[in-house]
Amino acid sequence: MIIYFCAMRIKDENKQDSIIKATIKLVNQIGFASSSVSKIAKEANVSPATIYIYYKNKEDLLASTYIEIKQKLSSALLKNYDDTKPFRDVLKTFWFNGFDFVSQYRDYYQYAEQFSNSPFSALVNKEDVEKHFEPLLKVLQKGIEQKIIKDVSFDILSAFIFYPMMTLSNPKQCSSFKLNKENIEQAFTLAWDAIKL
Amino acid sequence: MIIYFCAMRIKDENKQDSIIKATIKLVNQIGFASSSVSKIAKEANVSPATIYIYYKNKEDLLASTYIEIKQKLSSALLKNYDDTKPFRDVLKTFWFNGFDFVSQYRDYYQYAEQFSNSPFSALVNKEDVEKHFEPLLKVLQKGIEQKIIKDVSFDILSAFIFYPMMTLSNPKQCSSFKLNKENIEQAFTLAWDAIKL
Repeated sequence: MIIYFCAMRIKDENKQDSIIKATIKLVNQIGFASSSVSKIAKEANVSPATIYIYYKNKEDLLASTYIEIKQKLSSALLKNYDDTKPFRDVLKTFWFNGFDFVSQYRDYYQYAEQFSNSPFSALVNKEDVEKHFEPLLKVLQKGIEQKIIKDVSFDILSAFIFYPMMTLSNPKQCSSFKLNKENIEQAFTLAWDAIKL
Repeated sequence: MIIYFCAMRIKDENKQDSIIKATIKLVNQIGFASSSVSKIAKEANVSPATIYIYYKNKEDLLASTYIEIKQKLSSALLKNYDDTKPFRDVLKTFWFNGFDFVSQYRDYYQYAEQFSNSPFSALVNKEDVEKHFEPLLKVLQKGIEQKIIKDVSFDILSAFIFYPMMTLSNPKQCSSFKLNKENIEQAFTLAWDAIKL
């Protein structure tokens, strides 16, 4: 009975994953306004009715897709997190993880950027996004308390340690930045010099 | 005769300016796909035919609006440029100018961000944008040659000296960063520490 129930769950999650992927693909191709629920359903190979099981409406689907991407990014950054390592090495792991994520999920990133600058961003509850980044903020807070990094706001720290990886891995902003280990490492030197005390 | 010709030109530029402003306003409100030439014309208080005098089609209007914004940003950054000042002060002037521009033209900035992450960005010739930023790149090049700042690519330097001002002044990314002189100055310390040799 339990096994059967789990199998059902997995099937559902696969479906939801297909819907999210189809939303990202379609929006990146034809934009938010033209991406209707019926077109997304067709792309995801499900019926429109299936989409409405998981999402209230198109707006809910668009906003949920955004939150899902932010959650994936946060988990990706924390991969191999080891707080016994020196603080600089912990941040360097975040840094390389961030580049890995954006290289692998460039389409997710493109959707998120577009969404956060679109009128739809008003649909997202800020706390629903921020809660996923709390573990990262806790790491920075520890660095501040230990007087390793500057005691400035998280917004300022993020602008120099998290956002530059997004900028540099976006070919629309930095077309000539080649995503290889040497360049990513060189750019980290600047991020570290920015935030270290 | 010449005076008459000039008067005609000024009138035209005003019209073109109204069209650009209407495009930015409408796209920020209802998105790219829903912003038709006829709706933009209505918002700009001109006839659709007038828009087609200046722009080939909707795509041309959207792309031209983006290039116009980039040109305005570049001019804004270079305001009060004085190469007899110490290099750090020159960059600090760029930094404050950038924050001034985005505070004043937040809607322009929102349009540009949305555009550069949308499928429409493929319509823009990269060189048409980059040529406006050449004077800024020349300043950075001078700093590298004088061994004041790090000898890294312009993409990396930009990610720490130009993009953070965009991130920090975007309330959708940094909602708790208050745009006052003290905070902008504090953030500059990190930008400078990042790029200085």
